[in-house]
Amino acid sequence: MLKQYCQEKGKIIDEALGKFVSCENMYPPAIFEAMRYSLFAGGKRLRPILLMAAADAVGGTGTDYLNIACGLEMIHTYSLIHDDLPAMDDDDYRRGKLTSHKVFGEGMAILAGDGLLTAAFTVMLSQPAVKPDVLVKVLGEISTAAGATGMIGGQVIDLSSEGEVISIDTLAYMHQAKTGALFKAALRAGAQLASAKEWQIEALTKYAEQFGLAFQITDDILDVTGLQEKIGKPIGSDMKNHKATYVTLYSLNEAKIMANQAVNQALEALSHFGHEADILREMVRSLLTRDN
Amino acid sequence: MLKQYCQEKGKIIDEALGKFVSCENMYPPAIFEAMRYSLFAGGKRLRPILLMAAADAVGGTGTDYLNIACGLEMIHTYSLIHDDLPAMDDDDYRRGKLTSHKVFGEGMAILAGDGLLTAAFTVMLSQPAVKPDVLVKVLGEISTAAGATGMIGGQVIDLSSEGEVISIDTLAYMHQAKTGALFKAALRAGAQLASAKEWQIEALTKYAEQFGLAFQITDDILDVTGLQEKIGKPIGSDMKNHKATYVTLYSLNEAKIMANQAVNQALEALSHFGHEADILREMVRSLLTRDN
Repeated sequence: MLKQYCQEKGKIIDEALGKFVSCENMYPPAIFEAMRYSLFAGGKRLRPILLMAAADAVGGTGTDYLNIACGLEMIHTYSLIHDDLPAMDDDDYRRGKLTSHKVFGEGMAILAGDGLLTAAFTVMLSQPAVKPDVLVKVLGEISTAAGATGMIGGQVIDLSSEGEVISIDTLAYMHQAKTGALFKAALRAGAQLASAKEWQIEALTKYAEQFGLAFQITDDILDVTGLQEKIGKPIGSDMKNHKATYVTLYSLNEAKIMANQAVNQALEALSHFGHEADILREMVRSLLTRDN
Repeated sequence: MLKQYCQEKGKIIDEALGKFVSCENMYPPAIFEAMRYSLFAGGKRLRPILLMAAADAVGGTGTDYLNIACGLEMIHTYSLIHDDLPAMDDDDYRRGKLTSHKVFGEGMAILAGDGLLTAAFTVMLSQPAVKPDVLVKVLGEISTAAGATGMIGGQVIDLSSEGEVISIDTLAYMHQAKTGALFKAALRAGAQLASAKEWQIEALTKYAEQFGLAFQITDDILDVTGLQEKIGKPIGSDMKNHKATYVTLYSLNEAKIMANQAVNQALEALSHFGHEADILREMVRSLLTRDN
């Protein structure tokens, strides 16, 4: 069921992204090519699908909010382009493809990231059929999650702690900010756009927090146990870069137990939802068996 | 009158910026320090003042829209930080101060720019006392102006044409996109926020286009005739970098005539306004005697 849902929504999202960031008759073409290159470099569309699944879970229709869903993917994609730059993580490959700056040069990669972040707001601000006051509230949450106290703040800690021993608290904060905040914004946006009740928003917020935690722990586990051809980057690169992860600060076994606990708590948060939240349940469960 | 207006509004803008991008109790502190460093590095606050003067010119109160005004300054500031990076213009100084990447390192400078761009939207989305539908429309225009068909697109052309001979049309397009689009968005935002009539918005749009043109021509003239201690960067740097400018493509004298023409056309666009547009008149006239 999850596979079909993701394929179906993924196709809709890809088509919309292709329209929102088009190459046709756009000037200057170079920047749109660079923006599209990273946008269509094999992303799993996790954030837009989470938004849609949250809207579906509260009785709405996730695909009604395509602009906001795509905006989240554009924000996520810009952050990857900038994270990969030589001045940051200096990665040549992502998902098995050359990174933006390797293909287009550093200057253009910086601008492609800037372009995607800015376009995300243009696209989200033109979301049809949503009351403007709801739109303003939701976009405020998304921009905060993407900002210096959220996603960017997490990257700042990542950047400044490379090669240093960091505490478990700092690691947890870094991940909550770097990836957790945007997951949470996606789920809350889906719920709020679909006029969720307060208890539903609260429950999905709790789910989001545990989802983010499980996502990060399983990401760290994959870096040790995964297959290079599946995850698209060299195995053990965290270890090699002396990065603190859940596997380096705990044992592999402990990390697996923690991932399980986070998944169970995410499921617990959905206990008052019926079958309409089954996709969200499957999504968090699937993290335990992810191979990329 | 203009000097007093700019001092008065400038103080209000600075205070608001200081609150919107605060350092107190913000985590991680490094990114907020970097964001503030560039935000308070001597900017003239031209875009927020243009927004306010436009609102005043149509009978509104410019200072009612402080969030949007400050958002424009934050967008402008982020663009300067990224433009100065080694992968772009590679500038060590701006307005006589070390550029962000020279002080904080390249990675942090990229993130400070990202942080300012994102925070601009957070701040603008929390603009009080504006109808949400008007806010959504105005922010849509601002994000478009700042994006890949506007400001970022202009920088793409600048980046990709360095050392190359470009046509006058390309030069004009580049400037209209790189600096003109955000000036226009500022003036149109001020008018629309203050519930301007359609003819007023149209007139201010024309004014904005000529203002942008005059600004750029006089900027190019300053690069040749200015004083280093006033403009804060070495004189003749455009010439040295083989950059096409209004002075290299035309003569200095022709450029001065063109600047005069643009100013006159900007004044012409305001012909149906009364004294309430005097600040805008003074602002565009003052470009002819600018020394920084």
